[in-house]
Amino acid sequence: MRRLLLWCAQNPWLATHVPRWRFARRAVRRFLPGEGFEAALKAAVEFKSKGIGALFTLLGENVIDLADANRVVEHYEEVLAAATGVQAEVSVKPTQLGLDIDPEAAYANLRRLARAAANAKSFLWIDMEGSAYTERTVDLYKTLRAEHSHVGLALQAYLHRTVSDVASLMPLKPAIRLVKGAYAEPADIAFTARREVDENYLALCALMLPEVKRRSLRLVIATHDTNLIAKAWGFGKALAIDPAHFEIAMLYGIRTDQQLRLAREGFSVRDLISWGDAWYAWYLRRLAERPANMWFVARQLLP
Amino acid sequence: MRRLLLWCAQNPWLATHVPRWRFARRAVRRFLPGEGFEAALKAAVEFKSKGIGALFTLLGENVIDLADANRVVEHYEEVLAAATGVQAEVSVKPTQLGLDIDPEAAYANLRRLARAAANAKSFLWIDMEGSAYTERTVDLYKTLRAEHSHVGLALQAYLHRTVSDVASLMPLKPAIRLVKGAYAEPADIAFTARREVDENYLALCALMLPEVKRRSLRLVIATHDTNLIAKAWGFGKALAIDPAHFEIAMLYGIRTDQQLRLAREGFSVRDLISWGDAWYAWYLRRLAERPANMWFVARQLLP
Repeated sequence: MRRLLLWCAQNPWLATHVPRWRFARRAVRRFLPGEGFEAALKAAVEFKSKGIGALFTLLGENVIDLADANRVVEHYEEVLAAATGVQAEVSVKPTQLGLDIDPEAAYANLRRLARAAANAKSFLWIDMEGSAYTERTVDLYKTLRAEHSHVGLALQAYLHRTVSDVASLMPLKPAIRLVKGAYAEPADIAFTARREVDENYLALCALMLPEVKRRSLRLVIATHDTNLIAKAWGFGKALAIDPAHFEIAMLYGIRTDQQLRLAREGFSVRDLISWGDAWYAWYLRRLAERPANMWFVARQLLP
Repeated sequence: MRRLLLWCAQNPWLATHVPRWRFARRAVRRFLPGEGFEAALKAAVEFKSKGIGALFTLLGENVIDLADANRVVEHYEEVLAAATGVQAEVSVKPTQLGLDIDPEAAYANLRRLARAAANAKSFLWIDMEGSAYTERTVDLYKTLRAEHSHVGLALQAYLHRTVSDVASLMPLKPAIRLVKGAYAEPADIAFTARREVDENYLALCALMLPEVKRRSLRLVIATHDTNLIAKAWGFGKALAIDPAHFEIAMLYGIRTDQQLRLAREGFSVRDLISWGDAWYAWYLRRLAERPANMWFVARQLLP
């Protein structure tokens, strides 16, 4: 099922047609407060009132025109300016900033956004995409981190290389948002069994949490797997980490009840809020990562 | 099957009768080079020629007479004197030194052995037993470690508390021999599913390996699970740990081929060699931890 959904995510015909189907637009509402930034901002204001932070991301990837990349940067600059009041952070994909067509322009765009984030007293996250981009994205982050302190990188627990990336990033006092990983990757570079991904995820947390305790690493545990979060907190608690420094991020609309519970328990919780019309591939990766979401889609098909 | 074997391990009638059965004595030979120390020493000399160290342990636990505990100490003192040539280390169980009857006497016995180990330029390990002893054993180790540098403690990855024990021991620059755990423990204090034990084991390694890299912790990975060893080495390698500081211990007679391979690959490998007539409970715990060993027993039953 996961493979099929990820295949659909990359199919051009489906990418063109599915977004026109009314039931598909209705189903995607589970994960998006709306297609425009205004809806995202409104959701962030509401989350803030409940003690939950926001992480904003404009959907879209693999732009093939630098003018489009530039429009993405300008949009994020507006977002950062508007987001000051809700203390939101932002997350961008390197291919959304032009990495496929011009790596130097993509890096210049990242720097522009890092500056804008600094001016807004916000924080810029670099998203991780498929494995074809991992090496370049880690390198982009290392260069950017040397210039800016309020920048972070998403890393994927399903990749064998991630432990080495963490080890090489540690001296930079990095910010790492650890996700399980949502792309279809081959078994020679990635763990493909869920239990192995989970095992590696927890071990990566165990490796990083002593640095969180020393305040030399910012770790955001970005998963909806509350069992895994509880196990990671077992390590955090044993290390006497302040719950306020134990950060958790979840996607909008998936486990709101759990976000509220974790925030009440004193953890630092953030909601990843997306908007934009380029939701097709992103949406299928969300379905692939949590089969339970398929039932929601099935219900949308009923009258 | 595991529960049944662990029940048998604690059954007094079986403990009295089984060791008299000829097939049982034959089966146990898989795990013991012989019933006397001479056989253990001979095996250690052979392992040393192959680049594998030894860890000696006299079988026995829960002694109920201080005179017996004293005989155990005297025996270990002789073992330590004899073991100098093979650079062996020794491992003792607190209840073998009288913990059940007189904790202070048990601690005095431990100190005697720590001094004897220091004189022999050896290393004294404290074994971990059932959960009724965990707290006291960790405390014994903390006290002993304050006086002696060449002492280590076995910890069990199946216990929920182990991460806290590791965290509290870290400032002492400890030596930790991490095992999965071989006793029957309830689900409120221990992981009971194998995959959860493995997951916790790897995460505990990930937590400790940066300290191994800093040379402020000695970690011995004591398992026959070569898949788990490979995953732990993934973390060790990413941290650029010298393979000679990546220590692995396995029991005598179980995976000799793997010990030889790991030693050839440059890792520090040690063979845990036991002797003594008190093998019954110990032997059943070995069977419980590895169902494949049951086939070996089954073969002994055939003419």
